[in-house]
Amino acid sequence: MKPALLIIDMQNDFLLPGAPAEISGAIKIVPAVKKLLYFCRERKIPVFHVIRQYRYDGSDIENFRREGFLQNARYLVPGTPGAEIISELKPAEGEYIIVKPRFSAFFCTELELILKRIKIDDIVICGVQYPNCIRATALDSVSYDYSTTVITDATAGADDEIEVSNIRDLMNIGVKCVTFKEWSKQI
Amino acid sequence: MKPALLIIDMQNDFLLPGAPAEISGAIKIVPAVKKLLYFCRERKIPVFHVIRQYRYDGSDIENFRREGFLQNARYLVPGTPGAEIISELKPAEGEYIIVKPRFSAFFCTELELILKRIKIDDIVICGVQYPNCIRATALDSVSYDYSTTVITDATAGADDEIEVSNIRDLMNIGVKCVTFKEWSKQI
Repeated sequence: MKPALLIIDMQNDFLLPGAPAEISGAIKIVPAVKKLLYFCRERKIPVFHVIRQYRYDGSDIENFRREGFLQNARYLVPGTPGAEIISELKPAEGEYIIVKPRFSAFFCTELELILKRIKIDDIVICGVQYPNCIRATALDSVSYDYSTTVITDATAGADDEIEVSNIRDLMNIGVKCVTFKEWSKQI
Repeated sequence: MKPALLIIDMQNDFLLPGAPAEISGAIKIVPAVKKLLYFCRERKIPVFHVIRQYRYDGSDIENFRREGFLQNARYLVPGTPGAEIISELKPAEGEYIIVKPRFSAFFCTELELILKRIKIDDIVICGVQYPNCIRATALDSVSYDYSTTVITDATAGADDEIEVSNIRDLMNIGVKCVTFKEWSKQI
């Protein structure tokens, strides 16, 4: 199997305390994501930093979020500090950056093209947040026939109940949900 | 708004007691789905019967299900009674049948092309089951910018907790989750 790591939405506007799209509980996974990232770098496992951006005019934001985005504080706008990946996880040279307009890293992005080109068959997912971008990305990964793993201690949802219910549903569609320690032993 | 109804996976192999892919709790929603279907027929709301089929050789089944499918009893094979839509909900002339190879009704199907052609902007979803095909279809529907509604009393999961947690997550991405009575009042 040839794995690739997908780090999802670890950006300032989602992570920093008081940020406009803050996901409570997200900041706590930063050390675990960092450990996973450095492990993959050492093993030469390809790394994809998957991020969310919204154009300032709201033309590419989800419909249900559009009004709030335009009327209140905007977030994740390209070129602003909020849209940047948090400093602890800055991409290294040669790592891929994928900008996604929706929940899934596969939806209207070039991810699948690159994965195919570099012959990846095993997707390893971490980041935020369980019910939305993690779930959607894992679902598409299974649909595209990739072996799919979520690293549970490097992935977050807004609270424990949301994490538990999403892990249950993900395991039921064949997604392996394991800790970094469990996963790293078998690589 | 121009709505269309998507009835998901109401097939014998998922519904009938003792069927090889039986979803517990699915049979109980049949009367509600039937009421919704007849309501849409009366109002000339386009109806899409979205179904799952797997080729006998397993070439189009999800990877994680493939071994079990080939080694044990096959299910949802085209041409078999199990793959048929349950008798109470047989498609009428002029209604669309969409065969989907994965969870989402949008994934590798012609659904989006037809919706665009007939200018639908409002997707109404019912059927089975909450964490898989309902969730995936609603997620893609939101991603494609459709107004999206799940009719809760015409949709099922394996148990109450699965239904409740998925409704919570769906509402958080802008999906309206309402009963048939609530929905039908506003149409």
